[in-house]
Amino acid sequence: MKIAYLGPAGTYSGELAEELAGELKAATVPYPELEAVVMAVSRGEVELGLVPVENSLEGSVNVTLDMLGQVEELQITGERIYPIRHSLLAPAGVSMGEIEEVFSHPQSLGQCRRYLRQRLPGVRQTPCSSNASAFLQALKKPRAAAIGSSRGGQSYGLVLLEENIQDEEENYTRFLLLGKEKQGPTGRDKTSLLFSLKDEPGSLYRLLGHFARQKINLTKIKSRPSRKRLGEYIFFLDLEGHSSDQRVAQALRGARAEALSCKVLGSYPRAF
Amino acid sequence: MKIAYLGPAGTYSGELAEELAGELKAATVPYPELEAVVMAVSRGEVELGLVPVENSLEGSVNVTLDMLGQVEELQITGERIYPIRHSLLAPAGVSMGEIEEVFSHPQSLGQCRRYLRQRLPGVRQTPCSSNASAFLQALKKPRAAAIGSSRGGQSYGLVLLEENIQDEEENYTRFLLLGKEKQGPTGRDKTSLLFSLKDEPGSLYRLLGHFARQKINLTKIKSRPSRKRLGEYIFFLDLEGHSSDQRVAQALRGARAEALSCKVLGSYPRAF
Repeated sequence: MKIAYLGPAGTYSGELAEELAGELKAATVPYPELEAVVMAVSRGEVELGLVPVENSLEGSVNVTLDMLGQVEELQITGERIYPIRHSLLAPAGVSMGEIEEVFSHPQSLGQCRRYLRQRLPGVRQTPCSSNASAFLQALKKPRAAAIGSSRGGQSYGLVLLEENIQDEEENYTRFLLLGKEKQGPTGRDKTSLLFSLKDEPGSLYRLLGHFARQKINLTKIKSRPSRKRLGEYIFFLDLEGHSSDQRVAQALRGARAEALSCKVLGSYPRAF
Repeated sequence: MKIAYLGPAGTYSGELAEELAGELKAATVPYPELEAVVMAVSRGEVELGLVPVENSLEGSVNVTLDMLGQVEELQITGERIYPIRHSLLAPAGVSMGEIEEVFSHPQSLGQCRRYLRQRLPGVRQTPCSSNASAFLQALKKPRAAAIGSSRGGQSYGLVLLEENIQDEEENYTRFLLLGKEKQGPTGRDKTSLLFSLKDEPGSLYRLLGHFARQKINLTKIKSRPSRKRLGEYIFFLDLEGHSSDQRVAQALRGARAEALSCKVLGSYPRAF
């Protein structure tokens, strides 16, 4: 079994992919772009794809969800909430006091701004295209360090100096697992929907009524203008329950009649 | 009059700030962080603040909107939809064929991936913390170029080589204008709300009912879990109309009674 993820190896996506590969006794395959991950699953090159969808350094919600809406046979088969914990790593032998330059993705540098000011004042900060590229660059310099995942940096041969150096404690990324097989109900599931509505007063209200009357709890809603047609809106909706649950199935029948289009992106076990 | 924006000068935020400054006969003041822009308005150091809220290279929705929710006396006083059009710029005398290295923010490089592959194959791509920093670095090298706003790059002394080089035609960023003075109704307004709800079936549906019954059109909805309390959700909602319109005022009264909290972030003229 193979799991595709957004590479290169050593990023947070890669770290989570390795964790999953351990659980599922699978191998991981890095791809250079989100689209390539989705297409690898669609073409059957891999059984699972791992894509970040919220609050991520490495990806974009809309790209992923739009593709899911277009690629017919794909399903969301699971979700993972992964903590982003930045570490400071350096080549063997380099101590805190010797560091003259720190490499990382601009967003990771930004998330460790306070730490860098207090612990490495005056040290040069050099942005990189990914934290994996930061690891490679730090290895080439005599007095450099990199910020990224501790496991990722160590896999590149760097030594861990300090852990949990991000300024904010709570920094999570939500990932989705993509596959081709529908997941059966577990009793603790979530369903993701993509639907489009006409831009007119009450259209969303009427649609949500089908879920409210079945006492279905929504866990996420996000709108954006459709890129295809003016005056049309796209909604991403997550709800508690499985599409085969009687109440969910009934609400979906009503919603389908109401919306311009409605697609179940998948029903899968909830991460929390 | 002064307009604060997320600096440095030469970014897309800076380009739009200059445009506004021309319209309003104001001066622009760059700040290093979004929070600093919001606080500058709050403390009265500037009259207006310009902050990106959607689809931006440089900012984050949640940071800005959360701050608006907390800083009592601040209002959204306007919005701007700004097209992100990337240009290739180089120091005077450098032609396309001579370029050996291109500097830009990783996301700008990503948005010009196809262009770079076709027009500058094999050219080294070097990520920077902002497009303004890319302009500075390109100036220091003999055979380099940078990607960013054409006006921004030229203000740093670079020469425009090619315009509109982004892979996708449609790339807009929505900006908000922040101030302290409430805007009166113009007949073509939008109102932004921040409210929190208990995480239970039907809570959003009931809340939206107040707007649907008044035939108020919603233009945006976005949910996220509250960071303060488990089982509580925060919603950002934009609707057509001014908070002083009779129908909007009546819907807001109903919504206030329904939600755990509800704050009008501002009523302001619609950009489109």
